[in-house]
Amino acid sequence: MAEAASEDLLLAAAFVSDAQYNRNIPFKTSPEAVRLYRLYNHWTMRTATYFFIFLNLSLAMFEEPAVYPLPFLVTSLVEVLCLLVFFGRLTHFARVTHRSVFWKDTKNICIMAAILLSLTDLAIYGVLRIYNMKSVRWSRIVRPIFLINFAESRQIRRAFRSIRNTLPEITYVFLLFMFSLLMFSLMALKLFGERNLQTAEGLPYFRNYLEIVFDLYVLVTTANSPDVMMPAFDFSSWYALFFIAFVIVNTYIFMSLFLAVVYNNYKKHLKNEIRKLAYMKRRKMIEAFNLLKEEEGAQFVVREARWKQLVKLVAPDISNSHRELLLHISDDEQKNFIDKKSFLQLADLLNIQVITLKIRSHPLGRWMPRVYKSAVSRFLRSMVRHRGFVWTYDVIILINAIFIALDEESPYISYAEWVFLALYIIEILLKVYTYEPRAFFGKNQFWNWFDTLIIFAALTATILNTTLKSTTKYNSQQILDIVFILRVLRLIRIVDSIQRFRVIMNTLINIIPTMLTFGGLTLVVYCVFAIIGMELFHGKIQFFPANSNAPHALECGNPALKDSLFARGKYCKNNFNNFASSFIVLMELTVVNQWHVFANGFANVTAQPAKLYFIAFHIVMVIIIVNIFVSFILEAFFVEYSLEKSEVETAIEQKIQELGMGVQEDELQDEQLLENMENADHNLEGEGGSKPQSKGLVFKIASKPYEGTAVVSEVLLWPRSPFSSLSYVHSVFLLDWIMRVQDS
Amino acid sequence: MAEAASEDLLLAAAFVSDAQYNRNIPFKTSPEAVRLYRLYNHWTMRTATYFFIFLNLSLAMFEEPAVYPLPFLVTSLVEVLCLLVFFGRLTHFARVTHRSVFWKDTKNICIMAAILLSLTDLAIYGVLRIYNMKSVRWSRIVRPIFLINFAESRQIRRAFRSIRNTLPEITYVFLLFMFSLLMFSLMALKLFGERNLQTAEGLPYFRNYLEIVFDLYVLVTTANSPDVMMPAFDFSSWYALFFIAFVIVNTYIFMSLFLAVVYNNYKKHLKNEIRKLAYMKRRKMIEAFNLLKEEEGAQFVVREARWKQLVKLVAPDISNSHRELLLHISDDEQKNFIDKKSFLQLADLLNIQVITLKIRSHPLGRWMPRVYKSAVSRFLRSMVRHRGFVWTYDVIILINAIFIALDEESPYISYAEWVFLALYIIEILLKVYTYEPRAFFGKNQFWNWFDTLIIFAALTATILNTTLKSTTKYNSQQILDIVFILRVLRLIRIVDSIQRFRVIMNTLINIIPTMLTFGGLTLVVYCVFAIIGMELFHGKIQFFPANSNAPHALECGNPALKDSLFARGKYCKNNFNNFASSFIVLMELTVVNQWHVFANGFANVTAQPAKLYFIAFHIVMVIIIVNIFVSFILEAFFVEYSLEKSEVETAIEQKIQELGMGVQEDELQDEQLLENMENADHNLEGEGGSKPQSKGLVFKIASKPYEGTAVVSEVLLWPRSPFSSLSYVHSVFLLDWIMRVQDS
Repeated sequence: MAEAASEDLLLAAAFVSDAQYNRNIPFKTSPEAVRLYRLYNHWTMRTATYFFIFLNLSLAMFEEPAVYPLPFLVTSLVEVLCLLVFFGRLTHFARVTHRSVFWKDTKNICIMAAILLSLTDLAIYGVLRIYNMKSVRWSRIVRPIFLINFAESRQIRRAFRSIRNTLPEITYVFLLFMFSLLMFSLMALKLFGERNLQTAEGLPYFRNYLEIVFDLYVLVTTANSPDVMMPAFDFSSWYALFFIAFVIVNTYIFMSLFLAVVYNNYKKHLKNEIRKLAYMKRRKMIEAFNLLKEEEGAQFVVREARWKQLVKLVAPDISNSHRELLLHISDDEQKNFIDKKSFLQLADLLNIQVITLKIRSHPLGRWMPRVYKSAVSRFLRSMVRHRGFVWTYDVIILINAIFIALDEESPYISYAEWVFLALYIIEILLKVYTYEPRAFFGKNQFWNWFDTLIIFAALTATILNTTLKSTTKYNSQQILDIVFILRVLRLIRIVDSIQRFRVIMNTLINIIPTMLTFGGLTLVVYCVFAIIGMELFHGKIQFFPANSNAPHALECGNPALKDSLFARGKYCKNNFNNFASSFIVLMELTVVNQWHVFANGFANVTAQPAKLYFIAFHIVMVIIIVNIFVSFILEAFFVEYSLEKSEVETAIEQKIQELGMGVQEDELQDEQLLENMENADHNLEGEGGSKPQSKGLVFKIASKPYEGTAVVSEVLLWPRSPFSSLSYVHSVFLLDWIMRVQDS
Repeated sequence: MAEAASEDLLLAAAFVSDAQYNRNIPFKTSPEAVRLYRLYNHWTMRTATYFFIFLNLSLAMFEEPAVYPLPFLVTSLVEVLCLLVFFGRLTHFARVTHRSVFWKDTKNICIMAAILLSLTDLAIYGVLRIYNMKSVRWSRIVRPIFLINFAESRQIRRAFRSIRNTLPEITYVFLLFMFSLLMFSLMALKLFGERNLQTAEGLPYFRNYLEIVFDLYVLVTTANSPDVMMPAFDFSSWYALFFIAFVIVNTYIFMSLFLAVVYNNYKKHLKNEIRKLAYMKRRKMIEAFNLLKEEEGAQFVVREARWKQLVKLVAPDISNSHRELLLHISDDEQKNFIDKKSFLQLADLLNIQVITLKIRSHPLGRWMPRVYKSAVSRFLRSMVRHRGFVWTYDVIILINAIFIALDEESPYISYAEWVFLALYIIEILLKVYTYEPRAFFGKNQFWNWFDTLIIFAALTATILNTTLKSTTKYNSQQILDIVFILRVLRLIRIVDSIQRFRVIMNTLINIIPTMLTFGGLTLVVYCVFAIIGMELFHGKIQFFPANSNAPHALECGNPALKDSLFARGKYCKNNFNNFASSFIVLMELTVVNQWHVFANGFANVTAQPAKLYFIAFHIVMVIIIVNIFVSFILEAFFVEYSLEKSEVETAIEQKIQELGMGVQEDELQDEQLLENMENADHNLEGEGGSKPQSKGLVFKIASKPYEGTAVVSEVLLWPRSPFSSLSYVHSVFLLDWIMRVQDS
């Protein structure tokens, strides 16, 4: 009986956990499967999977053509290891879920096919290699499949689904756009084709229909903007009208239309996803409730003790006080049970990350109270807390900026650097002296962490550099570069002093996690295109240092590039000779400018259809993915600005306010709070010790538990899971939050 | 008494008209003022004002530096004439409105100041000219003020207001962006400043802080994308990371943030505007109602006769049947009066443009019924109406496209051109033969008009060209160019055959009127920048034809441009030497690409701070106006796609459906309808002539009124006033819409 109950609890915990993290895996409900499922979702397993996925992807750096060459045996062994891990993960998953479900899921089929393909390709390549025959490692292109299809990368899959849903509509706009392009090209052929005009490079201008189409497609991206027009414009000013009409129709209207279609679909899709997620979440929570429910009067409820066990299982690392807060919210009327409606909220409640942060009196105050509470110390602390302190350091930062901009050679300037470093270190020490160290380095104190890390890294690097210089008389270039960067990064802190900038910065910081999804998306697209690009263009273009006397060094080692814009722009290092430089080329193509020079260059050294590779990349990356990125920024920005709170958050906040534990953000000057609390403590005592405690919760200023220090918990609702705009959370501050439950 | 009533009517009509066109002018209510106000709003007066505004703006084409030079006397006389007209218009307005209101309105003050400034400047310039002293016509910069401030250009003013409201918020983002730019520049200076690197042009790379800031600002616009990175990248691959970070932060995130801020404000502002407009409209309609109301039972109402007089006054050019429809909607229950609620809707009802289009039997059918109704004729007509007819012509268009792409020289091809022209003319004639000509050339038949105009223009031009060729043995270049363009434009028609394309095209066509507002906005910005640009850069850069032997012909006549990218790109014709070429340069700067080459070129021939002109233009035009344009396209697109109808439209449609006069759009095959109606006619007669007519309206197939022809009115609700998204209207089709009101 007890065992059955504990199995139910485990199963319920699995449901709640799935609801909390929006997982949607139909696992088997046998106790063994549930335990396996728990293991499957453990963070170590997930991290390991990610590690091997990225290891597998990064193999491209070490395989031919390699950035850092490793023997084939090593890379192939690593690849086999990765594939084994993936297979293990898949097997684990197969044992967790029902067989029919497993085989219906295209994700699993994809992974298996990818593993098989990779192995066969590896085997064939290895065998051919033994007989010294060259072949293509074509299976490398399937590697991103692992990144997309493992259940952990839900967000990347969601982004891909969003793209897939956008495709039909975007295709129609694209076809219309292509039609417009073809029409304009035909017009250009008729208007300019027989004028015998020449481009600035002396090539024939607008003679060949396909070339015109390509040139005008490039004009849509604005990359060859005035150049493509100049010969016609020089011939007659009226021809400028043709190009102006072209740009208005194709660049401005059609490109905006693409953004509109993508954005519209993105919004629609996001709404559907959120609706579906909410439905799934509710269903899982109902299943969990049904497992734990007991009869109480006319209704089914979950008893408090079971609820606590459940929460401990689902979220083992949250603090007691946090759990009590959740209980207090769920069991609103202190009836010692939780009804169905409150229970269903649990997943959302858990999702609102509450950081428990204890503000204590300063440790120095405990260790040497006399010194710490002396007049000098008090004055120092009040000085640090004064606004003037911040302003002084803002001025110091500005002066530092000027010094950085000045010439490094003068010895005074390099001494000044030490002065500034010292000043910054003093600032940090003073702050740590004034504020409680654990509060200063709280999880949410982004700028404090940023500051301290930058300063100490700069200190280390500067000392390292100086010792190197004094011992070997030689500046290490890498260390110096890092020192320079750190020195400038220090200046960023000034942004935090201006309220409006802080708001914008916080918006940007909040959307960083989701931008990682786009990072993943971009990684997948880049990987695929980089691998194709390496197969197509590897070795065709080479980079020689400036003083090289290799043949055709100026033409990137390829006479076909003579007089081309590619060679003239000294673009030789932009090649597909290894994975890293392919990525850089693709980055440059994403930025769009001069992409036609790349396209023409690589087409010259191979064949004209090579341009299709560049056009395809432009369509996929710029027209689709960059537009989705922009849509995402727009949506995130609007949500951040509208400052709407979800229902659950409002409920929590309300409860906090009811309990009298809310504070305004600007009140949160730690020391001041501490003092207020001390006063409150006295008042309470003045009123006659402990008041009668209602509802089983005691709010008490714990003046004695830790040897005479006031202990305060600051519970902070912290933004989380930025992808779903449902749960944009805004900070609510709690303090004075120590609970002693009477029955414990 | 009768006179007072007619004056009230006039006043009420003025209120309704203001409500209809969202005018907000507090005019005096004296009968004389109302009559003057009516004149003030008359379309001829408005058109004349616009004409003189554009005449005044276009003077820049004829003044020094002129595209087409005219003597100073002529241009100054024209300018004085324009200013007189503006003054007259202002005086007219002053007599219409209250003095206190007039002097409080900044618009009027602006216009007066602009007139005064222009006159003084003109006088000073004229006097100095007599004494042969050179001076600057600085007042030309105020000319766009007339375009902005005349009450007619409400939409441009609204756009400017929208920009002004966006400014504070965008300024903060811009400052943060500038901070980021300055930080990155500082880092670049430290990292690359002492490496002694060189750009592809052999210039020092990243030495001077201000130059770095400019280069990196250009990189934000992506205009110098790989070039600015290449020297550092060639030195060490790791430095690419610096540029990648820079592009991600500044180009992708900050530029999206700009769009987000602009779009967010645009939406907010649009909502407020619409709310304000709706409030003003309601107030005006209430005032009109109060003037016309009479007591009827317990409520005040407007009697039907007065209502009709009012509508005749407000909208004299709508048809009787249209007015009857409106009456029928307003006076829902046929009580011969209109209550307050319905009356207030009148302005919206009038705003929904209802095109009355009569579908009659073919005039040939009347003139020679025997021939027209013969078997051959019937077969011909059914053939034209068949889907195959459209498909055949789609195929012909495609073949034509191929022929156009082929070489013109071969005589067969040029004969083919005549064949195609003949085929298209036959198509139009057949269609006119089959469908009723007035229906075929209805106001809403965009493609029919487009087709016919293109074909007949092509026919005229081709004939003209052939006669010129046969008489003078010489192809006129202009005519040939027009023929080429028309030939290609003909092909566009194929888009109309595909349903999905038609939807997108219709969206695009619907937003054209509002794009004109952006045209106005762009015109204002261009004018100001063109005039400043001409003062700054006039004559500094000159264009010489390719075979010129002028000194420094290759350096655009200015040795300062030797070896510059500007001269190497053969950009000499991009100069500020006259108004037209200034506009083209500004267009190229709007497209952004290579703008740094222009900025550097013009800075070389003047001074380095000249770059500020180009940066300012980029900020105003690209960061603000283009983003507003994109916001507008996004919003227009979403509204078009959401297909929401306003309440009033729904009311009309419902009424139409109630009356049994609705048809599905795809049923609207004219001839078929005609036949259906004829059948319906027979059925009605079969049922025993005229049925008892309820509610004073007769729905009758007018088989006899016009000598045996069926007369059908097709009333079409047609999209209008696209700026306010409130009134995006979707077409509703009405037919069989002949009303005979019993009391008439």
